[in-house]
Amino acid sequence: MSAPVVPDLHSVRNEFRNELLASGLLIDAGKPGLYGRSGLFDDIVDSLDGALTGIMAPLDAERMRFAPVYPKTEFELTDYIVSFPNLTGSINGFTGTDRDHASLITARANGEDWNDWLSPAETMLVPAVCHPLYERLSGSLPVGGRVFDLAGYCFRHEPSSDPMRLQAFRMHEFVYVGEEETAREFRDTWIVRLLVLLQELGLDARTVPANDPFFGRAGRMLARNQLADDLKLELVVPIYGDLDDGTAVGSGNCHGDHFGQSFGILAGDGSVAHGACVAYGMERVTLALLRTHGFEPASWPSDVRKRLGWAA
Amino acid sequence: MSAPVVPDLHSVRNEFRNELLASGLLIDAGKPGLYGRSGLFDDIVDSLDGALTGIMAPLDAERMRFAPVYPKTEFELTDYIVSFPNLTGSINGFTGTDRDHASLITARANGEDWNDWLSPAETMLVPAVCHPLYERLSGSLPVGGRVFDLAGYCFRHEPSSDPMRLQAFRMHEFVYVGEEETAREFRDTWIVRLLVLLQELGLDARTVPANDPFFGRAGRMLARNQLADDLKLELVVPIYGDLDDGTAVGSGNCHGDHFGQSFGILAGDGSVAHGACVAYGMERVTLALLRTHGFEPASWPSDVRKRLGWAA
Repeated sequence: MSAPVVPDLHSVRNEFRNELLASGLLIDAGKPGLYGRSGLFDDIVDSLDGALTGIMAPLDAERMRFAPVYPKTEFELTDYIVSFPNLTGSINGFTGTDRDHASLITARANGEDWNDWLSPAETMLVPAVCHPLYERLSGSLPVGGRVFDLAGYCFRHEPSSDPMRLQAFRMHEFVYVGEEETAREFRDTWIVRLLVLLQELGLDARTVPANDPFFGRAGRMLARNQLADDLKLELVVPIYGDLDDGTAVGSGNCHGDHFGQSFGILAGDGSVAHGACVAYGMERVTLALLRTHGFEPASWPSDVRKRLGWAA
Repeated sequence: MSAPVVPDLHSVRNEFRNELLASGLLIDAGKPGLYGRSGLFDDIVDSLDGALTGIMAPLDAERMRFAPVYPKTEFELTDYIVSFPNLTGSINGFTGTDRDHASLITARANGEDWNDWLSPAETMLVPAVCHPLYERLSGSLPVGGRVFDLAGYCFRHEPSSDPMRLQAFRMHEFVYVGEEETAREFRDTWIVRLLVLLQELGLDARTVPANDPFFGRAGRMLARNQLADDLKLELVVPIYGDLDDGTAVGSGNCHGDHFGQSFGILAGDGSVAHGACVAYGMERVTLALLRTHGFEPASWPSDVRKRLGWAA
């Protein structure tokens, strides 16, 4: 008689990943955390995003879309390299001559690495869709602040076999920049609306106090402060049963005056602007829906289908 | 009496760029060729993409979407670094210890560059949306081949003040991989359908034989061969009047057996697979529409509005 098999987190994650690949919803793109997505997968993303845009409509947010690449000068102002060096993506390019290129090709033909012929392009991969926004707001905001609707690709260098953790993923984020009190109110109001939407979609979602994964020993203190000041709430959904505390599929954050200070943004009352955001990971929520309701959207519960704008 | 002002290409491009920024359709993102886009801009992109998807529907293409980042091992197989080193984007990250991070921070605090603390992440930015596809096709294809519908961000390191030339832009591409004869037929058929769509949208579009901007002296021969073998057709629209030969907003290409050879892909008849594609630049066509019909889509010609699925 063999001992009962106790599932462990690693194998359950692998199993979910393999099921997604076998179904064709995700396509192995050759590196941990890099996938192609099927048309069906992105149809779910689009419907989900339609539902989100619907609940956020009262904000009358200014829609802006930025590319996944932005200037290093702006990256520097966020101090991201201090807090999250391990997640950073920096871009190198080739600016050499014909002769430099010839030596690059010779080195490559000899099986050598050709990275030494590249140099920093002074651009970075965008780690959160709001980062390219702040430099645009330098100066004074109107009284009451401004609200933005931002979406696009983010990059985080954290290769993982967990299909919930991608190196390149899409985030949809609503950002308030303005007065301090309004900022926290914004976060507290709209994180609940997003929570309700996720629950209407049949997800067992809840909000939990959280902290960002600040790097290293110094980072532990930053994390503690963030928790103590109630600056970060995560929207968590159970993906792997009791094996972990659930996976964050969205969050609501008070940025304090971090971006206001760094980018020289003043609120309408003349104080340094505060910021807050509510955001969700477009692939993460989609994966949570697939995990919860199965891989056949046609047979998802009729109220979920209706909430996604599909024929019930 | 002053001499009449003769407009030159550089100043006319700058003027177009400044008009786009003043209108808010594009948002200066801090580097040549990097922009934010307004909600209105992306509404046009979405409608345009809907019209394109409509005409391409008979292909019943397999939809796949890849992230803008892919493995260096696959980039290597395309020989892109030989042909277009100057357009390449390579990603570096930080994988050091707490102590390494401390020295990075010290260097940064002293105003030094911290690039030396990063190392290659073995990933690259995607230069064309079909590049992450081919490794997935390694092996044998069915007789008749396969057709794919791919879309997403591409990166090309070519900073320019011309708003038609972006460092990060979106491409929608239909790709055939299979038998040689079918590949050329695919290109010749669908480039014309795309041309007709652009003309229906009121663009003064035409196809011209073209070549890719292969790098350096050796590249000139590659370019000549590509032209001589009629491998590349560009869809060109006049953007700057008579000041240049128009701007490419799309293309149809015969890849020959380049990707088939490199990635070990066999056609259904056992020969090395050939490939072809028809693609358009989502921002480029949108900018061509704005240049042609003006910055107020509400007052665009009613047949153009109708073709985009808008109330006429």
